[in-house]
This record gives sequence, structure tokens and C-alpha cells, in this order.
Amino acid sequence: VVGGVFFDPSLRTRVSMEAACARLGAHFVDLRPGEGSWALELRDGVPMDGAAPEHVREAARVLSRYADLLAVRSFPAGRDPEEDRREEVLRAFARHATVPVLSLESAMGHPCQGLADLMILRELAGGDLAGKPVCLTWAPHPKSLPQAVPLSVVRMAAVGGAELRVACPEGWDLDEEVMARAREMAAERGGRVVVHRDPDAAAAGAIAVYAKAWGPDRRAPSAAAARSELPRLDYWRVDARRMRLTMGRKGAFLHCLPVRRGVVVDDEVLEGPWSRVTDQAACREFVQAALLLSWLL
Amino acid sequence: VVGGVFFDPSLRTRVSMEAACARLGAHFVDLRPGEGSWALELRDGVPMDGAAPEHVREAARVLSRYADLLAVRSFPAGRDPEEDRREEVLRAFARHATVPVLSLESAMGHPCQGLADLMILRELAGGDLAGKPVCLTWAPHPKSLPQAVPLSVVRMAAVGGAELRVACPEGWDLDEEVMARAREMAAERGGRVVVHRDPDAAAAGAIAVYAKAWGPDRRAPSAAAARSELPRLDYWRVDARRMRLTMGRKGAFLHCLPVRRGVVVDDEVLEGPWSRVTDQAACREFVQAALLLSWLL
Amino acid sequence: VVGGVFFDPSLRTRVSMEAACARLGAHFVDLRPGEGSWALELRDGVPMDGAAPEHVREAARVLSRYADLLAVRSFPAGRDPEEDRREEVLRAFARHATVPVLSLESAMGHPCQGLADLMILRELAGGDLAGKPVCLTWAPHPKSLPQAVPLSVVRMAAVGGAELRVACPEGWDLDEEVMARAREMAAERGGRVVVHRDPDAAAAGAIAVYAKAWGPDRRAPSAAAARSELPRLDYWRVDARRMRLTMGRKGAFLHCLPVRRGVVVDDEVLEGPWSRVTDQAACREFVQAALLLSWLL
Repeated sequence: VVGGVFFDPSLRTRVSMEAACARLGAHFVDLRPGEGSWALELRDGVPMDGAAPEHVREAARVLSRYADLLAVRSFPAGRDPEEDRREEVLRAFARHATVPVLSLESAMGHPCQGLADLMILRELAGGDLAGKPVCLTWAPHPKSLPQAVPLSVVRMAAVGGAELRVACPEGWDLDEEVMARAREMAAERGGRVVVHRDPDAAAAGAIAVYAKAWGPDRRAPSAAAARSELPRLDYWRVDARRMRLTMGRKGAFLHCLPVRRGVVVDDEVLEGPWSRVTDQAACREFVQAALLLSWLL
Repeated sequence: VVGGVFFDPSLRTRVSMEAACARLGAHFVDLRPGEGSWALELRDGVPMDGAAPEHVREAARVLSRYADLLAVRSFPAGRDPEEDRREEVLRAFARHATVPVLSLESAMGHPCQGLADLMILRELAGGDLAGKPVCLTWAPHPKSLPQAVPLSVVRMAAVGGAELRVACPEGWDLDEEVMARAREMAAERGGRVVVHRDPDAAAAGAIAVYAKAWGPDRRAPSAAAARSELPRLDYWRVDARRMRLTMGRKGAFLHCLPVRRGVVVDDEVLEGPWSRVTDQAACREFVQAALLLSWLL
Repeated sequence: VVGGVFFDPSLRTRVSMEAACARLGAHFVDLRPGEGSWALELRDGVPMDGAAPEHVREAARVLSRYADLLAVRSFPAGRDPEEDRREEVLRAFARHATVPVLSLESAMGHPCQGLADLMILRELAGGDLAGKPVCLTWAPHPKSLPQAVPLSVVRMAAVGGAELRVACPEGWDLDEEVMARAREMAAERGGRVVVHRDPDAAAAGAIAVYAKAWGPDRRAPSAAAARSELPRLDYWRVDARRMRLTMGRKGAFLHCLPVRRGVVVDDEVLEGPWSRVTDQAACREFVQAALLLSWLL
């Protein structure tokens, strides 16, 4: 029994977990605190006389008795960058659960997506990702999204030893601690992590262009300025012209989905020969099935 | 793995699908776009800078990788009859999915209900429905409901070669294209489809009175007039008196459910010897199990 | 197939039922009337021209055809004590269903919780609960909660023959009919049921302090007065000092959960050596698995 605890919406994550569980003979429980289940208090030491009738301590401990693994999705609140970095919901479950806790995306990472990305990148690289150029490009979006997915891409590209080129406008840099650690890991594996300000240069010759929108680096000195000097959105949107700059013009377009067509990427790219986003999403079920087997057997 | 995609509420459909899957060793996923899962964009070629973060193209393609069959419920919006007839949600899934797509009710039909109806009608007919009189009667309702269920009844009665009598007030005629095709199919099988304006005449001697509320034919010239000249609602509500007009007074009362008691039909009928609505609903699981087996084995 | 019908939120109940079903090879359906499924009309004989499109008669009969057992959760509305005592939702399902109906909590009881409580109390008593002192204490709460859980505790303590001490302020007495029946049952089994106004006296030497908030006895003459003379909430909240009064200072703290920390009980108790609430919740799955086996095999 795998206990899924969703504080935020999901399509791929829940369905791929349910499918992986079903095919392995496990049962996935879909729990949504505050929606058919009790809202959870996360703070310690406060008298619980407000809206939340249950504390995460009890929820994590009790669910650990019914489930063999807990899988938690909790997006950052976006109020305060330091608060978001603490990932309080995920950490509270990890601290109080007595079974393994799997992140289904939190503020600082989306590890199942990262594993699926590593799987498809290795396939695109013909087996060995070491030294292969991969472009991770910032993309426009109507909302200021978390960095969870790009940070997992950075970690996994480093694990694979890729030459990872992160293209983003000034002020939208990815979390510096994760980037520093990724540079070390990549170097150990014959790869590197470099930042580009021009997405065309980052895409040139790459085996894949991985597009993802994310919000400005709210802790960096340049972040405030970044928000008033917006990047040229049309230029950052991935189009067929940029895809033609990739390796032998045959580079793959990747995205974790959901993707906003006409904002992040042109329809022409998603419907064209470059798009591997469906295969990429399919990898989710396989890597999660492997995770479940390795944790539960 | 059967992926259920519900844009609208369900009781019988979801539970009978879950039960059929469970008994066959399959797993049914219950997905509700916009409710715990992403809202879906259906239009092609528009920049997705609005509320919907995911396009149906990606959703259908990705779900096809996790599920062996997709089952989609999407009621018509009711804004425009031509738009409704296009069944854009169902058609988009059918177009972009790479696995079979089963309708769990759309604007123009409810095929699983139709198969269940054919099953119970054949049982009521003693095995062979050909030439047997069946009354499908319009019924009052506080809302203007779609024609999906009555159109499936018409199709299935025609397939079974019944003498189908459709009773409805002027201005509430069923979709003419479906009726024309049904007349042809019925004729090929020794049956026919006739329209009555008097529900008593249509019920006389019938093996079953199938009641269903539906909205006026919004494309017919008489539709506008119909809405100002309302039918006598008390007369159209099915009562014990009308049921006594049926075959040897032993005709069956059928309805797809949910049914509004005291509006569509009297309590006396539902609680009386005529009612077969629970058996009819039970057929849903059997025909759907057969469908799953024939599609997935 | 077990059909769960939830009119109210749940964490332990749904997840422990899903886990019990999964481990036994059964499938649990999670149905929520009015949320993804049709709202249900409960009243008989009224024309259904309002918001609810389906009557509980049809719902219970149809679900009985898809499921082998129905499990219904319906909290009291709290408008009128006599109405609540009638438990109309649960009774309607029990009356119209054609398969067994299990209560997952209604106004007057929470039998699965009661069985789990009996299991843990027997374990705490070293096997035989007869004659062992157990303290069930009223606790403060921001809302006026139903008596379902404490009434089931009373019944099960009586079944086990415990010396049950019910501690509550005047005006918060438990349902007199249930108490009278429990006194008889306890006496037959060598136990008794006594009411205390002082929680310290009730806790002294007890093998367990079972805390639970509940609302005033709305039918008792003293209830109106009770609501203006509130009990001293700090005194009634269970603290470490009170737990040290229990048997050899080793008494267990029990609660059905969810529990409001700092309102019902101090964090120090829940995090201390007394707390058995997680083990107690774990019993839910075991007793429900036993129930399912005894009913369905």
C-alpha cells in the first residue's frame, strides 16, 4: 500500500504512480488534505484552535501504519523564499513518518521527474550521457513557477556527467547552492554546468532542449531589477528555428508537462519531429516502478 | 489500467466501471480535470496564457502511455447546439490518444448506457426484441437536459429491431440525423421508429416505458415556439395509470437514473411492480465488463 | 467490491478501509455524494425539483448491485437533537440497500472505532478488560462535536466488562439511553459504568485515559445552563500531571484522532511515554479487515 498525499494538483504524477502500483500488485491511496480529508496543522507547539483539526505529526505517524511508503506532493507557498527552501510539509512527513517518504515534488526538487529525465536523456545520448551537450532553457510563463523541476534536471544531468548549459535571463538564475553542488558532481563525472544568457548559443549542437518556466531568483541581488526589466518573451519561447540549431538538427525537445503552448514553446515544435515529451512522461511510470521495487522489496 | 477522465459527475458510471475493472483484475483511475488535476485547454493554436495549464493533446497522449484504454465523460456545454454536436472534448481525446477511447457520455450519446438498455430490453422481450413495442417517453425536468441517453436508446432499440415509439411534445423532437439513421437500421431488422405526441398511445401495449427528460430541439424551427408553449407537465409525468396501459399491464418502467421522483415519474411507479430501474443499472457493470474484455484482450 | 459512501471527511477511516481491502484482495470505491457524484435526496414523497437529482432509494439499491457491502459515513447535521438521533442517512441506506451496510460513523456511533478501541484496551489490560478501570474524559474543543465516538467507547468498554469512568462537566452528559444500556451490559460482564465530575478522580489508577471532545447534551434539562457556565477548559485538557495519576503512572493516553494539540491534550502527553494513539489508529485496519472477512466470506 502506497499512501499518496497531495497538497497540490497532479495528472502525470498520480496516474503514473497508480499505474505503476497497479502493475506491481500494490495499491495507491489518493489522499488530499483539506479535500475529503482533514486539513493539517504543520506548526509545532501552537494550540490547535483554528481551522486545521489534525497535526501532521499524527497524520504522518498514522498513515505510516496503513501504508508501506508515503508519497507527498507539496508545492512552495511562494510567500517567502527562505520558508519555501525549508520544505516544511515534506520535511514534517519525513520526520514523523515511520515508513519511507518519497517526494512527488516540493519546493527544491521533483526527484521522480528528475529520474525520468535522466532516463530519456541517456536514451537520447545513445546510452551514455557523459560529455553530451544538453540545453536547459528558461521559458516565459504567466505565473512565477517554482524551480523544483529545473533543479532536478540540473542534479540529474550532473549525475549523468552531461555538459549542461543552463540558459536564463539575468535575475532568473537557479538556486546557487544546487548549482554549486551540481558543478562538483558533473566535474567528477566528466561533465560541467555552464550558464548562458543566450538560448540560441545554449541550444547550438545540443542533443536536447529542455524548456521550463521558472520564477526569478528571489534571493539574488539582481532579482528585484530582473522583475522590472523583463526578458524578451518571444525570443525565449522555443521555436522551430531554435530547434534547428541543435545536434544535426535532430535534437529533442523535452518538457516535464503540463506545458503552455504558444507561451513556453510553439505548437510547431510540439507537433514536429523534435518533440519527445510524451516519451519523457512515459518514463515516469518506469522509474517510479523501479523506485517502488527497490524500496519495498 | 483504465484511465477514467470525468469532466462531469457520475455515480453509476464510475462505480460500475470500478467494479467491472476490479472483478476483471484491471485498475480504474479516477481523473477529474480541474479538480485535483490540471484544467485542460481544448482549442488548437491559441497561446495558452489563461487558466488552463495543459492542452488536451498532451493529456491524451500522456494518459495513453499510462493506461490501456481511456474512458471519457464530457457533457455538452449547452451554449450552442452546433458546438455541442461537435463533442469537442471526446473527439479531441479520440484524435490524440494512442489507445482506444470509450465514451462515458457525451452530447450525442451514452453508449454504455445504451448497451445496458439493449440488454434489459432483450431480457424483457424474452430474448428477441425484434418487432416488440417499446415506448421512449419524454418527461418533465427542472433543467434542460442533453439528448445523449435518449439518442442511445433510439440507436439500440433500432439495433434490436424493436418497434420504438418515441413520445414527446412538439418542439422536443430528438436529433433528426440520429432518428433518420435509426429508422434505416430498424427497418433492416424488422423494426421501426415512430414518433407519438400522446404518451398514452405510445405506452399502450408496450413491453417497457422508458422515461427520460431532455431539452427542446434547439435546431428545429419549432423549438423557439416550444419554449413558450410548455407541455402539460403533470400529464407527461409517468404514473401508475399509464403503466397499466402497457403489455398485459405488466410492462416495465425503465430509466437510466438518476431520476427525479415526483417530477419525471411517480413514487408509486418506482416502488411498484413495473420498476426495473435497478436491474437496468446493474446491467451497466456486465456490458462494460464485456466491452473491456473485448477491447483489452 | 466495498462501496464507501462519504458524506463527510475522513483520513483514518478511508485509508484504513482501502488498506484492509487491498490486503484482502477487495476493491474499495470512494464515493462522495455531491462531489463528483450526485447529491442525494433523503426525504420520501417530495417532488424532486430542487438541487438533488438522485434519491437515496435509487442510490442504495443501485450501489448494492455493484458492491458486496456498503460503508457509509454521515455526521449529524447538528440542527436538532431528535433529527440527529434518527440517523436518517445511515438508516436510509440500511433500509434500501440489498447488501450489508456498515457505519463508518453516524450521529450515535462509530462502530469500527469502537472495535479498534476494544482491541487496544484489551491489549493494555493484558488480554482481559473485565474489572479494569478505564477513564473516558470529556475534553475542550472549539466546535461542539457529536457523541458518536464516546458512545461507541462506552458500548465497547461495557462489552469488555471494564470499570468505565466517564468524566464530564455537568450538562455534557452522554446520551442517557446508551448509558443505561451500557450499565446493563457492563453489569452482566462484571464491570460498571460510573460518571465523574472530576477528571482527576476518574483518571486515578486507570489503565487508560481516553480523551474526546463532545458537545453538550442538548436534550437534558441542564444543557441550556451548561452552555452559559463553561467548564474550566485548562483543567479539562489532559496534561502530564493527570497522566501521572494513572495506573503505576504507566496508564495509556488514547484518542480516536484527529486531535487538537494544546486544546484537547498537551503536546507533552502525545509525545510522551503515555501516548498509544498511533497504535490505536493502527487497530482500525485490523478490526475492519476482520469485519470484512466475517461479512463477505
